[in-house]
Amino acid sequence: MTDHSTYVQDLGRAARRAGRQLAGLTGAVKVAALRRVADAIRASAAPLQDANALDLQAAHAAGLAMPLVKRLELNDKKIAAMADAVDQIAAQTDPVGQIIEGYVRPNGLRIQKVRVPMGVILFIYESRPNVTSDAAALALKSGNAIILRGGKEAVHSNRAIAAIVADGLRAAEIDPAAVQLVESTDRAIVPALCKLSECIDIIIPRGGENLIRTVVREATIPVLKHFTGNCHVYIDAATTTTEDQVRAVCVNAKTSYPGGAVCNAVEHLLFHKDAAPRLLAKVAGDLAAKGVEVRVDERAAAFYPQGKPTTDADWAEEYLNLIVGIKVVDSLDAAVDHINQYGSHHTDAILTESMTAADRFVRGVDSGSVMVNASTRFADGGEYGLGAEVGISTDKLHARGPMGAADLTTYKWVVTGEGHCR
Amino acid sequence: MTDHSTYVQDLGRAARRAGRQLAGLTGAVKVAALRRVADAIRASAAPLQDANALDLQAAHAAGLAMPLVKRLELNDKKIAAMADAVDQIAAQTDPVGQIIEGYVRPNGLRIQKVRVPMGVILFIYESRPNVTSDAAALALKSGNAIILRGGKEAVHSNRAIAAIVADGLRAAEIDPAAVQLVESTDRAIVPALCKLSECIDIIIPRGGENLIRTVVREATIPVLKHFTGNCHVYIDAATTTTEDQVRAVCVNAKTSYPGGAVCNAVEHLLFHKDAAPRLLAKVAGDLAAKGVEVRVDERAAAFYPQGKPTTDADWAEEYLNLIVGIKVVDSLDAAVDHINQYGSHHTDAILTESMTAADRFVRGVDSGSVMVNASTRFADGGEYGLGAEVGISTDKLHARGPMGAADLTTYKWVVTGEGHCR
Repeated sequence: MTDHSTYVQDLGRAARRAGRQLAGLTGAVKVAALRRVADAIRASAAPLQDANALDLQAAHAAGLAMPLVKRLELNDKKIAAMADAVDQIAAQTDPVGQIIEGYVRPNGLRIQKVRVPMGVILFIYESRPNVTSDAAALALKSGNAIILRGGKEAVHSNRAIAAIVADGLRAAEIDPAAVQLVESTDRAIVPALCKLSECIDIIIPRGGENLIRTVVREATIPVLKHFTGNCHVYIDAATTTTEDQVRAVCVNAKTSYPGGAVCNAVEHLLFHKDAAPRLLAKVAGDLAAKGVEVRVDERAAAFYPQGKPTTDADWAEEYLNLIVGIKVVDSLDAAVDHINQYGSHHTDAILTESMTAADRFVRGVDSGSVMVNASTRFADGGEYGLGAEVGISTDKLHARGPMGAADLTTYKWVVTGEGHCR
Repeated sequence: MTDHSTYVQDLGRAARRAGRQLAGLTGAVKVAALRRVADAIRASAAPLQDANALDLQAAHAAGLAMPLVKRLELNDKKIAAMADAVDQIAAQTDPVGQIIEGYVRPNGLRIQKVRVPMGVILFIYESRPNVTSDAAALALKSGNAIILRGGKEAVHSNRAIAAIVADGLRAAEIDPAAVQLVESTDRAIVPALCKLSECIDIIIPRGGENLIRTVVREATIPVLKHFTGNCHVYIDAATTTTEDQVRAVCVNAKTSYPGGAVCNAVEHLLFHKDAAPRLLAKVAGDLAAKGVEVRVDERAAAFYPQGKPTTDADWAEEYLNLIVGIKVVDSLDAAVDHINQYGSHHTDAILTESMTAADRFVRGVDSGSVMVNASTRFADGGEYGLGAEVGISTDKLHARGPMGAADLTTYKWVVTGEGHCR
């Protein structure tokens, strides 16, 4: 086992130093650096794809499942989207320095809550290489230094992207330690990083459940978790006029991302008992026609006998695959209870024409995003207008749901008096 | 060792049930309950003081230090302040349901960030019994159930206060499990509570460093830390016209709370080398006259030779007592570096006439509250207009500095479409 302590210490100290510089930068300097990065990504499509080819080759050699290979691939469209995301982040209002609240107390003391960067972020993630440029751009925008620890499977792509970012920083005279990619892919480095409380202010892990559990166990620094997405669509009784919409949203929620291998894909459909007779078989048939394995509980089997029977283990599972579990429930309350018990508090949707039902569902479901007549797939920083996301928090502390640049900030209370004593 | 698992489970489940009810209550119902509690506190001064006398008796018998006994005492003034705090919290705008942000995306999707309660809060605290009513009121206002685990030293006072709160809840037809005081004072119950992740959403520990370290170590639930307050006052070079203010603020910051036993009391004074010749001896003399033990570094000793020499251990220490450490620094930057290295990121102040110096200090000091020409003692929920505080967060995640009712909420994204697919 290699001792990473010196390397990790150096990394942390360099990040802390860069973070102090970043916190004092004007918005214009950060925007200029981001624009350069976006342009450089666009101009580097060919070398990026060369680097990416090495990762794809290794993935095929390792026999990685097709949906995971797809996530890894950097095609022209994805590269253009990466650059666009950086440009969108550049165009946003700078969160740093924003006065969240400000007022004068009866004794004349002036009180302001001012948004400031966190300092240094450790971001640990897997797969999709576009996350590297998203996270770097969001950190830079919010005035934070970031240490990026990507997955082994994307190491060549991540290095190529990090090099582009470093060039952009240098051109804008920003310390390149503002965005550092951890060079080593040795797993033993993660616990060492997670204990660097002197130099790191927050850890954001984004990936499989094992990764997140490891980070939470090892960390001596606050962790913002991006946990599993066991998402639901509840088809309410009151859906008389929207059969086409119900069918379209269910299919979209399950299949619009290749292989369903994404956290905001739906995993379970809950049909109100009055909606099931009209809609369940049609929705199940649509999904099966798209290659989805349809699993049904006993009551759902009455409408779709071709389905595979579910077991108790199904309801808590995030398949991350072309599988869906279908259940019939007696009421909206039963749906809400099921979601709160088995779901992962990520994203859940109701399809209904009833305002009362929508309100009760929105209030009752304890999730980061609650959709009304929309696909769960919209739970995404880009779709919410954040430019990109550093992750989708399933925590209730600090940030919930898709996290953009402002979610990487904290605040300080600035209190100004004229010699005030208490 | 008693097995607390059944008791703890029941407590947690009851809190979860009550939390669900609370989340759906209108503001008017919560206000009515709070008003009742405030009135009942005022009407119960005598029985509260009887209960408090038992705690004070035990404290004297146990030989508790005088500042700690003072913190425990419920006199008429403190009881009136408790009731006033509850009334102030009642009068605040309800944070629940507030739309933090709302906009329509280009595709017509309506996006709202809506403030919602956390759910269930576990609050673990020591000493001051008024914290019991403050925390209960803030939890109720923010629609959260709360489990209160007070210190053994205040057990009689806390029970009496909790009984008043329970009466207020019942009268307003709110489930009394909304505010539950842990009956047992057995220490073994804390680790059991800290692992109740099914029923508790957030833990807030407030007390000594040992308590907080135990909670962080044992918890499987996110923790919002209320750590030590090693607060500083930096006396800048540019204080030509404010000698009286400097002297008054330093004395106030150290001595206005009995025995200096409070987290927002100043522990260390940093004098700019150009301010030291004019001011150091006077400030040190004022403090000594108030019974404060003055400790000085080598350079400070040149101006105040009566001082006791400091050791390296002094600078990181939160004395929580009538002791102050004094140091002379070469520059504002040196003061900022010292504070960031040795401080606890709680509250730090600059005394200056220079706008540039104030700005640089405010930007440079990485603390929850930064004071300009005001005593550190103002770092307090009541003083910031929050009515009271559930604690002063020294974390950067979620909430920083004094935490009021809104800081006990999270949000959900509510996304409304018309059959939108991605």
